[in-house]
Amino acid sequence: MAAEHDLDAALLSTNFDLIQGLPLNVKNRVCALKKLQIDSIKVESDFYKRVHELEIEFETKFKSFFDQRKAIINGDVEPSACDVPILEGLNEEQIADLNKHTEADPSAKGIKDFWLTVLRTHDLVAETIEEHDAPILSFLTDVTTAASQDPPGFKIEFHFATNPYFKNSVLTKTYVLKFEPEEGAELSFDGPHVSRIIGDSIEWEDGKNVTKKAVKKKQKKGANAGKFLTKTVKAESFFNFFEPPKSKDERNEEDDDEHAEEFLELDYEMGQALRDTVIPRAVLFFTGELQADDMFDFPGEDGEEVSDFSDDEA
Amino acid sequence: MAAEHDLDAALLSTNFDLIQGLPLNVKNRVCALKKLQIDSIKVESDFYKRVHELEIEFETKFKSFFDQRKAIINGDVEPSACDVPILEGLNEEQIADLNKHTEADPSAKGIKDFWLTVLRTHDLVAETIEEHDAPILSFLTDVTTAASQDPPGFKIEFHFATNPYFKNSVLTKTYVLKFEPEEGAELSFDGPHVSRIIGDSIEWEDGKNVTKKAVKKKQKKGANAGKFLTKTVKAESFFNFFEPPKSKDERNEEDDDEHAEEFLELDYEMGQALRDTVIPRAVLFFTGELQADDMFDFPGEDGEEVSDFSDDEA
Repeated sequence: MAAEHDLDAALLSTNFDLIQGLPLNVKNRVCALKKLQIDSIKVESDFYKRVHELEIEFETKFKSFFDQRKAIINGDVEPSACDVPILEGLNEEQIADLNKHTEADPSAKGIKDFWLTVLRTHDLVAETIEEHDAPILSFLTDVTTAASQDPPGFKIEFHFATNPYFKNSVLTKTYVLKFEPEEGAELSFDGPHVSRIIGDSIEWEDGKNVTKKAVKKKQKKGANAGKFLTKTVKAESFFNFFEPPKSKDERNEEDDDEHAEEFLELDYEMGQALRDTVIPRAVLFFTGELQADDMFDFPGEDGEEVSDFSDDEA
Repeated sequence: MAAEHDLDAALLSTNFDLIQGLPLNVKNRVCALKKLQIDSIKVESDFYKRVHELEIEFETKFKSFFDQRKAIINGDVEPSACDVPILEGLNEEQIADLNKHTEADPSAKGIKDFWLTVLRTHDLVAETIEEHDAPILSFLTDVTTAASQDPPGFKIEFHFATNPYFKNSVLTKTYVLKFEPEEGAELSFDGPHVSRIIGDSIEWEDGKNVTKKAVKKKQKKGANAGKFLTKTVKAESFFNFFEPPKSKDERNEEDDDEHAEEFLELDYEMGQALRDTVIPRAVLFFTGELQADDMFDFPGEDGEEVSDFSDDEA
């Protein structure tokens, strides 16, 4: 399609030739439509703000369910006998099979490792959990989410029982959202987007910080050449989640920001998955009936397993 | 993971072994959580209904923009000179280049083939448009959408100027939505889903129906063996959009419904794309600055082009 104009300009639009060929007065009409488009997108941003208000209104309605869930998981409440199947789609024989191998255990309190299992079953979250994180996540008593108006956005709270790893009882991750298009970039507006992500500092007990590791490195040059020096470097860990990537406004010029926006988006994706799926549907991840963040692929229904997160995202 | 139980049951849950190994009293607690889950999902359905009400409220706000757009496209209103760039990201030289090849054409009314170009630029919609559809879609004067409360859902209207192809001045496609989970299948609820799709009958002028074609077939058997018979069969066409697939409730046992749900979902996907992106962002598809249904890939921003519709969907 691109013919006389240079490559840069050609890349800007698949319909460049068509636009170029339009009579000037028709070009002016298209231009007027773009002006209208910018104005209508500003109204869209009001719509998204209203949806956010609705989410806040509904949080109180969901809170009662989440509080009851927490009480059962932590053994504060013993539910009466239950008449819904523990797994969907089993026949009577299979249900009997599921039950026959075990007896009641009076010493078992609540549901052990509930949240660890939930997090490990959700594809996207599971990818961030290392073996050394598991014993720490065993201390989770609840995972909650709450919307906020000021700053607008939402936070996710990980509540921990007293544990030997860190002093915090809650680790919070906050997503600050922007509901308006950027000035001058209205046309690329696509709904609420993350403007800043804030994580709690973890007060690790001595020697328990799994986000750091010591590496020994042989010095190649200088006075210490040939000697081993110990250096502390970043280690893979779920708990790096609380040291989120910097947003555009927070980064300074020295920061290597080639992939910074991508990391920010990926972090936001995990935040959304926790808020929209993992927290509200936790028991279905515990039973393994759900796996991916936004696909309801009860395998009983169509045998296929779908994951939205292809390997090349990792 | 699956060990003693049969394959069918194993497929039901990635955490089957874990669930099977739980003490009976703990199984009962998990069961109680599933009961809570079902109740909380019912509240979710109220949330989606409220969002739908919000959409209806905002439609009136957007209508004024859409009416102004229609007037400009069809030459009923001549806009004054416009100061926004016709394509994003061009430098002054490129803008001059874009303009220098053409002059004003006093005979040009409105914006010729506006909607045809828009539909042909949106990846998913473009796939459904055949060469024989283009001259018909040239008669489009407007494409609109409206939410409805009874039945709940939305419709899309294609408005046509008087044309030699069919008598209808409007072709409507209606999507009836269900905001509640199916009784007994609450746990697989994932928001509003389509329950029925209705299309207008097209009153084609004689010999103009592009959704049918005559094929000559040589008879192999019987009294007419060796003779050619003319048979009318379905032809590929954008206008098949108005003969939507049947929903579960409409299908009877004889219908080959192996892929029926898939076709229904794909049709709904196209309806959503028209409603959420093509109609509200039409001018950006006309200029070619947008292409896919839900990705804002202004190539000036990051050079990548992303399509949500991989070839294996086609």
